[in-house]
Amino acid sequence: MNRSFGRAALDLRPVSLEPRVSKHAEGSCLARFGDTHVLCTASVDEKVPPHVFGTGAGWVTAEYGMLPRSTHERMAREAARGKQGGRTLEIQRLIGRALRAAMDLRALGPRTITVDCDVIQADGGTRTAAITGGFVALALAVRALQGKKLSQTARPVLRHVAAVSVGIVDGAVRLDLDYDEDSTAEVDMNVVATGEGALVEVQGTAEGKAFRREDLDRMLDAALGGIATLKAAQEAALR
Amino acid sequence: MNRSFGRAALDLRPVSLEPRVSKHAEGSCLARFGDTHVLCTASVDEKVPPHVFGTGAGWVTAEYGMLPRSTHERMAREAARGKQGGRTLEIQRLIGRALRAAMDLRALGPRTITVDCDVIQADGGTRTAAITGGFVALALAVRALQGKKLSQTARPVLRHVAAVSVGIVDGAVRLDLDYDEDSTAEVDMNVVATGEGALVEVQGTAEGKAFRREDLDRMLDAALGGIATLKAAQEAALR
Amino acid sequence: MNRSFGRAALDLRPVSLEPRVSKHAEGSCLARFGDTHVLCTASVDEKVPPHVFGTGAGWVTAEYGMLPRSTHERMAREAARGKQGGRTLEIQRLIGRALRAAMDLRALGPRTITVDCDVIQADGGTRTAAITGGFVALALAVRALQGKKLSQTARPVLRHVAAVSVGIVDGAVRLDLDYDEDSTAEVDMNVVATGEGALVEVQGTAEGKAFRREDLDRMLDAALGGIATLKAAQEAALR
Amino acid sequence: MNRSFGRAALDLRPVSLEPRVSKHAEGSCLARFGDTHVLCTASVDEKVPPHVFGTGAGWVTAEYGMLPRSTHERMAREAARGKQGGRTLEIQRLIGRALRAAMDLRALGPRTITVDCDVIQADGGTRTAAITGGFVALALAVRALQGKKLSQTARPVLRHVAAVSVGIVDGAVRLDLDYDEDSTAEVDMNVVATGEGALVEVQGTAEGKAFRREDLDRMLDAALGGIATLKAAQEAALR
Amino acid sequence: MNRSFGRAALDLRPVSLEPRVSKHAEGSCLARFGDTHVLCTASVDEKVPPHVFGTGAGWVTAEYGMLPRSTHERMAREAARGKQGGRTLEIQRLIGRALRAAMDLRALGPRTITVDCDVIQADGGTRTAAITGGFVALALAVRALQGKKLSQTARPVLRHVAAVSVGIVDGAVRLDLDYDEDSTAEVDMNVVATGEGALVEVQGTAEGKAFRREDLDRMLDAALGGIATLKAAQEAALR
Amino acid sequence: MNRSFGRAALDLRPVSLEPRVSKHAEGSCLARFGDTHVLCTASVDEKVPPHVFGTGAGWVTAEYGMLPRSTHERMAREAARGKQGGRTLEIQRLIGRALRAAMDLRALGPRTITVDCDVIQADGGTRTAAITGGFVALALAVRALQGKKLSQTARPVLRHVAAVSVGIVDGAVRLDLDYDEDSTAEVDMNVVATGEGALVEVQGTAEGKAFRREDLDRMLDAALGGIATLKAAQEAALR
Repeated sequence: MNRSFGRAALDLRPVSLEPRVSKHAEGSCLARFGDTHVLCTASVDEKVPPHVFGTGAGWVTAEYGMLPRSTHERMAREAARGKQGGRTLEIQRLIGRALRAAMDLRALGPRTITVDCDVIQADGGTRTAAITGGFVALALAVRALQGKKLSQTARPVLRHVAAVSVGIVDGAVRLDLDYDEDSTAEVDMNVVATGEGALVEVQGTAEGKAFRREDLDRMLDAALGGIATLKAAQEAALR
Repeated sequence: MNRSFGRAALDLRPVSLEPRVSKHAEGSCLARFGDTHVLCTASVDEKVPPHVFGTGAGWVTAEYGMLPRSTHERMAREAARGKQGGRTLEIQRLIGRALRAAMDLRALGPRTITVDCDVIQADGGTRTAAITGGFVALALAVRALQGKKLSQTARPVLRHVAAVSVGIVDGAVRLDLDYDEDSTAEVDMNVVATGEGALVEVQGTAEGKAFRREDLDRMLDAALGGIATLKAAQEAALR
Repeated sequence: MNRSFGRAALDLRPVSLEPRVSKHAEGSCLARFGDTHVLCTASVDEKVPPHVFGTGAGWVTAEYGMLPRSTHERMAREAARGKQGGRTLEIQRLIGRALRAAMDLRALGPRTITVDCDVIQADGGTRTAAITGGFVALALAVRALQGKKLSQTARPVLRHVAAVSVGIVDGAVRLDLDYDEDSTAEVDMNVVATGEGALVEVQGTAEGKAFRREDLDRMLDAALGGIATLKAAQEAALR
Repeated sequence: MNRSFGRAALDLRPVSLEPRVSKHAEGSCLARFGDTHVLCTASVDEKVPPHVFGTGAGWVTAEYGMLPRSTHERMAREAARGKQGGRTLEIQRLIGRALRAAMDLRALGPRTITVDCDVIQADGGTRTAAITGGFVALALAVRALQGKKLSQTARPVLRHVAAVSVGIVDGAVRLDLDYDEDSTAEVDMNVVATGEGALVEVQGTAEGKAFRREDLDRMLDAALGGIATLKAAQEAALR
Repeated sequence: MNRSFGRAALDLRPVSLEPRVSKHAEGSCLARFGDTHVLCTASVDEKVPPHVFGTGAGWVTAEYGMLPRSTHERMAREAARGKQGGRTLEIQRLIGRALRAAMDLRALGPRTITVDCDVIQADGGTRTAAITGGFVALALAVRALQGKKLSQTARPVLRHVAAVSVGIVDGAVRLDLDYDEDSTAEVDMNVVATGEGALVEVQGTAEGKAFRREDLDRMLDAALGGIATLKAAQEAALR
Repeated sequence: MNRSFGRAALDLRPVSLEPRVSKHAEGSCLARFGDTHVLCTASVDEKVPPHVFGTGAGWVTAEYGMLPRSTHERMAREAARGKQGGRTLEIQRLIGRALRAAMDLRALGPRTITVDCDVIQADGGTRTAAITGGFVALALAVRALQGKKLSQTARPVLRHVAAVSVGIVDGAVRLDLDYDEDSTAEVDMNVVATGEGALVEVQGTAEGKAFRREDLDRMLDAALGGIATLKAAQEAALR
């Protein structure tokens, strides 16, 4: 086993969560998981979508995109093709659900925070970097609201949420797959969890051959270990 | 606890897999999970998409749709809105992956089978009914090929694949949620597995509050029990 | 002359109008003209489109779709292609006009009834089955309103409306063409009429060679005969 | 009864078919029916669509559009709205069918003639002016081919095809309705016929109240009278 | 040098600005620059777009289109392709900016004038003909408002605006390029100016080789000479 | 006059052209003009578009996009809106023309280089930063080809091309406007020129009031001064 950055099977890639990278956004974070770089910005809008209108609560939503040459081969620009693909829509729905799990939307008040996650460079694990960095951008945007449109004592952010991928490659569990590993993995799983290690989302997919309950258990162990590390990195970025 | 059809927490709804319901399709099955009715048709096309072209292998893909008034409230028709929504795309990608896990695509030869899953009436669990009934339609289409374009001894269908939903409602694990249960579930999970009980896809989502490893384990136990029953129903439909 | 179902030139195919087939819709009918099966649902919405807003009157509109494998060869899904084709739009405009001819829209009050006609299986004559079955779904939806949002004495449904196709095949007039006849017809005509035999819509098209006034007359005779039978089937379904 | 241009109930509006109005098109005609002005151009392309490819035959198709301010109120531009509406698609399908009824497509050889009918100014009857003028443009384009890509003795144009509207206004049959009459007509019918008076297409629609067989007969009489006049105008334009 | 219409290097093509060509539009002008014919209509709407709403001011906007066979080869219809191309959008933005430079939008009051410029026949310079004729249509629409919705003394039209193309062909400056010249020009420039010769828009593009400051100066001289002539033609059309 | 970065009227903002920022692209450059940051990547594809196919020559094209929160207020994502706006299309056409002016497309051989210019952060002048940085990315991509698919002696890059904005703000000429200046400028001009100071593209627009020939001259002087500085920065980045 020969992993990028010389790491062991259950190691994360070098992680960097650089906060406040945008001149304009209320909250922002450039999340780097090795060579995967995702720019996350959180924008506040004093409106809410119809399904929460009139309830007093707010909303958090996410959008996801990849720059055309963030990948090995250039991909067609979704704006030029005239629609977002299924993969894009699926990922941005996942990011939105994950980030809402961090929030008390009633405490946020009647406003929407949109977290844009744009992949500047891709090398596997873009959705987990987006969730992990998106949480930092979101928390910074909430902080910017506090003392202004939001009372100093409001606590709309209830808990940390972070995410990591895990898989089985050549029969062995590995944490935080890069692109080469991801392409050859037998099982690929994304785990979203709270800072306390409770599960928010588990998406495991067999690629080619089905997997056993024991595999699932070992992958979850690895993922929750990685998420504890990511939570610490989020705390450092927010300090 | 008061469940539809007077069933216990770990019971499926009444399941019916009615094969050969279409005059035109090479394979078809009307899958009924209680009041959820999904018409599955499998269509054979003697072409393959670019990414398998020239490899000798075939392909299986799926499309999913809901009739506008399959639901409590009428939904806008996707064809009229000019695009398929994110939920539709996400579900049809899941169905496609699940059905491919049943197949030896090389044994299928250079042809595509498209499994259309159209929801005639919805009451929760449309994607799991689609996978379970879609497998029957797919197997019938393959059978129609055997002895014609495919040799009698080719075995493109390697294994059964079926799916069921499971969730936590009012703190208790329940199998095969109907719409009312689904709307109030704390955790919602879809499990796709082979006839032997190996996992193909696990998608668990916390709705509002995160869940523990023990919850995940109990949900998987319940789901795999349901899938064993569904496999038997598939075998009966294919007999 | 050898017609499907062993019928004579001026016979309809076996017709079945099965009411109340949908758990959710206010009115519904599964219309079967031989192997052509169209699911019609009528949905009530307490809003009206801009062009009748403020007049006190209501509106009836229709949408039409075909399942991808309702036909001999699988057709591309319109939702996936991103738009409804010209044939679809033309048919749903026809269905809408035909059903409005049955109604007193002022007596309906300021609400819209949308009749969705989805072709489950196609074998010629889908638009005429849609109109004939759509009328039943519409009448049931109105009945559901009566005594609730509508007074018991309101009579928004003024008259029966039904439709049938007729054509010239091998020089002879034939009623209710199936797909094989339709593909080889020299003239193809759709007639919509009231229960009293007054004309609502006449659309006759020469396919390859032009037709004479006498041909038109004989086709109309045949069509009005068929419509009288269809009206009786509607009455039975509504009883 | 007070009709535009002081005409009697069964009179056409002043008709002008001005040939060769386009510098670029192989055939062209500016058709004026009173204040309705439609520019028809016929363009030859040495390719055929897939459904006739390899048969040796050619194809004739039509496209229809309205300039945004051809109408009383400005309409949104279809190119800006991103799609052609149902009415546009329905009309261009009708024009195409009508013009193909004039042709021997085998004699045309493997090429496509596209007839564009663009409404410069609208005052009712745009589709009938488009068919009548489109025939002239088509015949001129065929003539341009003869002696070049087509033999001098080929006869792809078999017969004249022209069209006119007719309706019942205030209980009386009237020929060639202008916009004001069309808006208040009880029945509205478009008739396409050959120069010999054989029917190509009959589309009659009740607007508000159903019509009797006798009404249909009287409308057809009037329409065929008008078409004889239009045929003479076509002959003059082609001389 | 051999130019169309036997003209000298710095001559315009024969220009005709025919006012009041539309029965329906508040203002209209058919602009002919040689064989380039653009129909310009100005439509008044008593609404304004969001960005000027509430300011008391009005708005002027433009749309541009080409008939499919206005060109040498037939172009695909933008409405059928489902979107306006980049060239179309760029041109209509230019026309809108140019016409707004003629106006006092506050004096217009809270209404929008939409100038549609539709190319009936193209032979180079469609955008400059559109601006020059669009100004006439706009001025006529304003005149129609005066004494009705606008006071007799309001002066929303502040100044003339006209446009012309100029280029370098075979090393020599030429005014008002036709299609053949445009295709072989080394530099192509469009100049929009006021009646007084002040610049509104200058867009010069090297086609293949870059140009010097002196070239720019000589092209501007030629263009401003042409615009003086066009202003006189506008005055004549508006008399 | 108080300009950002304490600069004088004819100074550029601090410019940084950081080459080789992308792990995947054949050429790349992060162009920073003050707070405007544009990521430029150049991707090589061994195919050419139809209009140069078979000529032996290659092609250079550009695409442009803005991240949703690159701006003061979040903009809707073009991929989600389903189309690229007119401004986007206009800018990417400009970038493509400008970069092609640097090239000998025949020497490039039958391949396409696509330069993607994505605005990470916007503060005025994104199109000029895109051209200036896009040139560096393009030149690096060509260098990567040399010695591999292209001979060592091929010289597809003929000359430097760079761009800068210039305008009149409060009556005074200013170079390289930032967003605040751009919003209040009376005239706004973008100039693209070669390293030798020959003009490639000049686009000047009056915003509200027309400008004189002398203004144009003074703006060109300022712009060409800035472009000389930008050329030096490009040379440094390519060293």
